[in-house]
Amino acid sequence: MAAESNSKSDILTLEKVREALIKQEDTIISRLIQRANFPLNSPAYDEGKFPSFPGSLLQFVVKETEALQSKVGRYESPEEHPFFPESLPPSLLPLPANPPVLHPAAGSININEKIWEFYFDELLPLFAAPGDDGSYASTASSDLDCLQAISRRIHYGYYVAEVKFKGSPQDYEPAIHDQDRDSLMKLLTFVDVEEMVKKRVEKKAKVFGQEVSLVDNANAKTDKHNASEKYKVDPSVVSRLYEEWIMPLTKLVQVEYLLRRLD
Amino acid sequence: MAAESNSKSDILTLEKVREALIKQEDTIISRLIQRANFPLNSPAYDEGKFPSFPGSLLQFVVKETEALQSKVGRYESPEEHPFFPESLPPSLLPLPANPPVLHPAAGSININEKIWEFYFDELLPLFAAPGDDGSYASTASSDLDCLQAISRRIHYGYYVAEVKFKGSPQDYEPAIHDQDRDSLMKLLTFVDVEEMVKKRVEKKAKVFGQEVSLVDNANAKTDKHNASEKYKVDPSVVSRLYEEWIMPLTKLVQVEYLLRRLD
Repeated sequence: MAAESNSKSDILTLEKVREALIKQEDTIISRLIQRANFPLNSPAYDEGKFPSFPGSLLQFVVKETEALQSKVGRYESPEEHPFFPESLPPSLLPLPANPPVLHPAAGSININEKIWEFYFDELLPLFAAPGDDGSYASTASSDLDCLQAISRRIHYGYYVAEVKFKGSPQDYEPAIHDQDRDSLMKLLTFVDVEEMVKKRVEKKAKVFGQEVSLVDNANAKTDKHNASEKYKVDPSVVSRLYEEWIMPLTKLVQVEYLLRRLD
Repeated sequence: MAAESNSKSDILTLEKVREALIKQEDTIISRLIQRANFPLNSPAYDEGKFPSFPGSLLQFVVKETEALQSKVGRYESPEEHPFFPESLPPSLLPLPANPPVLHPAAGSININEKIWEFYFDELLPLFAAPGDDGSYASTASSDLDCLQAISRRIHYGYYVAEVKFKGSPQDYEPAIHDQDRDSLMKLLTFVDVEEMVKKRVEKKAKVFGQEVSLVDNANAKTDKHNASEKYKVDPSVVSRLYEEWIMPLTKLVQVEYLLRRLD
């Protein structure tokens, strides 16, 4: 399961939301690195490859894992959404005692279909090597780890939007009354911040994705080029993941949330 | 699921086994770091805390996850052992076509009980902060990720033993015939290698467990002390994990395997 520690009982502040987002970068990158341990392993995605399953092995693993996680309360958190929401079992845990900090609109905004699509169609081929080593189950499970971390990060946009709205409702209310997506998108776009995020995740991919051995120790400190030659996941792919998908889709979640914020 | 890519169809060599072990260090450390995102969260381990489950929430998550993973063939790999082996469903996948490279004795050596014990009683309190943030399900799932990575690493001892035995059977056969554990243990112990492994995993914990930000960039390169002040998991705990548990238990697996190697 994906969650970092972020107790909803605390009062929501921009500082705390930012900290959570920064921590989630580490999780996303570390899961991409884990997935890169396997080649593409495309039979895991072929429907009908294994006649014992109704769909693909991936679909089986995702559906069964989501059912299990639903029983232990995963989808009681507003930022957690299943990829297969149909007929999930209910949570067996007591509901969280904390009052909700988000507008109920959050519950109805789930863009996991878009996430699934870009992950398998565009992102995965950029960082998984071609090939087939037969580890389909581990591969499927590792894909789900990546998908969940990315989905959580994107849907965390609810909290970003809520805290920004609460901080200066007067800035947002006119655009919300007019249901003006473009103005909301402009209010939520900070090019400098986005550039900084891209640089930071690229740097993290370099640090966490390096091959560490005792041998190069001395050189690695002085010879930057040498130390940074080979990474487990290409750092520019991580930067692109943020630029093309995570940041735009987070803003989409924020806009959708704000459009319903006054309902 | 835990597995790194390591196709069993390849011929077993000491080089390949070592590579796999070194890769598994990265996985173990990255999962400990993920677990350290949560505080101890002890209600996850209390039997009877949640009346909807027969045991603890942890036991529920582990048993249900193992059942799911069993259906997709996890336990067909000799180095993968369940923590709750009772009444697991069979694999729904076709069996691997590759001929087994290990002696069948491997299947009967499962030291997961010891691993469970040291993990919860000794290791976890060394790296999880005290406290309770309510994320019990994610915590349990993260514990299982750690347990599986450690278990896989320790049971990988089968391959280490097999490749060493094949390389010089004349060294091992007398001790096996005499069922002499002490001699086998001596044959399998290389103090220099163990010291190197401890140093390497400590270094990896420093690299993968650092807080990365754009701000300290310049200082971090030159001021080693400054850069290494705070890690997500104490590197000395990772070194100790290898020294006290992983390396001795891997050797135990090797000895048990070799004792039955000529049966």
